[in-house]
Amino acid sequence: MRIIRFSDENDEQRYGHNYQGDMATLLEGQLFNEPLEDTGREIRVKKLLAPIQPTAILCIGLNYREHARETGTDLPKYPVLFMKNPAAVNHPGDPIVLERSCLEPPEVDYEAELAVVIGKPAKDVPAAKAFDYVAGYTAANDVSARRWQKHAGAGQWVRGKSFDTFCPLGPELITPDEIPDPQTLQLRCILNNEIMQDSNTSDMIFPVPELIEYLSGGMTLLPGTVILTGTPSGVGFTRKPPVFLKPGDVVEVAVGHIGRLINPVISGK
Amino acid sequence: MRIIRFSDENDEQRYGHNYQGDMATLLEGQLFNEPLEDTGREIRVKKLLAPIQPTAILCIGLNYREHARETGTDLPKYPVLFMKNPAAVNHPGDPIVLERSCLEPPEVDYEAELAVVIGKPAKDVPAAKAFDYVAGYTAANDVSARRWQKHAGAGQWVRGKSFDTFCPLGPELITPDEIPDPQTLQLRCILNNEIMQDSNTSDMIFPVPELIEYLSGGMTLLPGTVILTGTPSGVGFTRKPPVFLKPGDVVEVAVGHIGRLINPVISGK
Repeated sequence: MRIIRFSDENDEQRYGHNYQGDMATLLEGQLFNEPLEDTGREIRVKKLLAPIQPTAILCIGLNYREHARETGTDLPKYPVLFMKNPAAVNHPGDPIVLERSCLEPPEVDYEAELAVVIGKPAKDVPAAKAFDYVAGYTAANDVSARRWQKHAGAGQWVRGKSFDTFCPLGPELITPDEIPDPQTLQLRCILNNEIMQDSNTSDMIFPVPELIEYLSGGMTLLPGTVILTGTPSGVGFTRKPPVFLKPGDVVEVAVGHIGRLINPVISGK
Repeated sequence: MRIIRFSDENDEQRYGHNYQGDMATLLEGQLFNEPLEDTGREIRVKKLLAPIQPTAILCIGLNYREHARETGTDLPKYPVLFMKNPAAVNHPGDPIVLERSCLEPPEVDYEAELAVVIGKPAKDVPAAKAFDYVAGYTAANDVSARRWQKHAGAGQWVRGKSFDTFCPLGPELITPDEIPDPQTLQLRCILNNEIMQDSNTSDMIFPVPELIEYLSGGMTLLPGTVILTGTPSGVGFTRKPPVFLKPGDVVEVAVGHIGRLINPVISGK
């Protein structure tokens, strides 16, 4: 099933599927505790939302071979874990806002990623059982302020990854039955109609089941945890000359048949 | 007011104050959206809980002058931000569990800290207004697996800071009217009756209002965000010889008149 979260005419938050035009079929219930019930009733989608408000956003750095190479980094021995503040979540179509402290000099970069949504508490889960804990997949843009991520953050990446609007998610949450193998998805980032990243999740160093085994080792993944699984090569800061997001840009992340996650870029106050 | 969160006889989660022995006065309502109402009714506390289940745990590294010196690090230009997985929260009196991957060689360290709880959405808050957003203060132990924090985490601290049980909080949430100046609190860590850290929040490089101004800049602090404000000198890994937590230890964090946060240490499976 392809699930959306949206606001209806009364600004109530709803789930739906069969999303087409501005209509969807209403699903009732909660995303995790019980199966969503298909009402069969058509309803107008007033505003599309990120398919989930995460309980935690866990992010993996340097998880594509080509990307590790372009950043001049050795292949990591273990998955490299950082987090984003949960308020960074952004909705499909909503602007990525470049705060003044990230505008001059330009430093904000795109990162196309496959996002995995955990559906039930996961602890010490072996890779062979990992898919049992996945509620679905969606696309993510791990927007990154490189100056804050690096020297201004004293080497800790959280600050530069956590500005508001820096975690677009969506448009749809695809249940695992529609993605039996998440390591076969084409992954693209398109900036103003130009392809900047073009890879495949088959290039991941640590595939999804291994990430879940690693992350859940001694650490509970709460329902609603979103795992951003890393970005492939082609990010802006490694290009010659570097490419950074600027007001007026439009950035699109496309992951397999998950759909297109499109966000314009604007300047903050 | 000194607020506790606890389980009652029916395992329902409650808030209370006037906590003494195993009794408290019941408070009704939610912690953030409305003022808690004092029922005046006495109720038995079956189990004390961390005063809050955080929406996010933001942590500041190297925020005490002496601690920056003992780790051989330059004083940071900006607060150093990392996060802990929210499932790491631990309750007063409950064990800190040393997972097998942290046992041999020993690597788990204590860090006594003042924790600040944000009570309403905070964005772009100037330091002069910062206290308006504080719901209260409590004590925290920022338990840290040093090997995972450092080389095994490839320089990102989140993994080594986020094992389950690695974030004891409590015992009480003290409202700001009882702590008009959070930069005057004695801060101690006591391991098996021996004082290991003994400092004062006056030694913070970035005091609480500046931390809130910095963190809320372009980034929303959601209600329920807990800020761990950094630890003073005296941590285990900088000692000669180093001191690490081992099964059978008892570790206590005492912050001013907030109370004593005591946790035994046990080995995981």
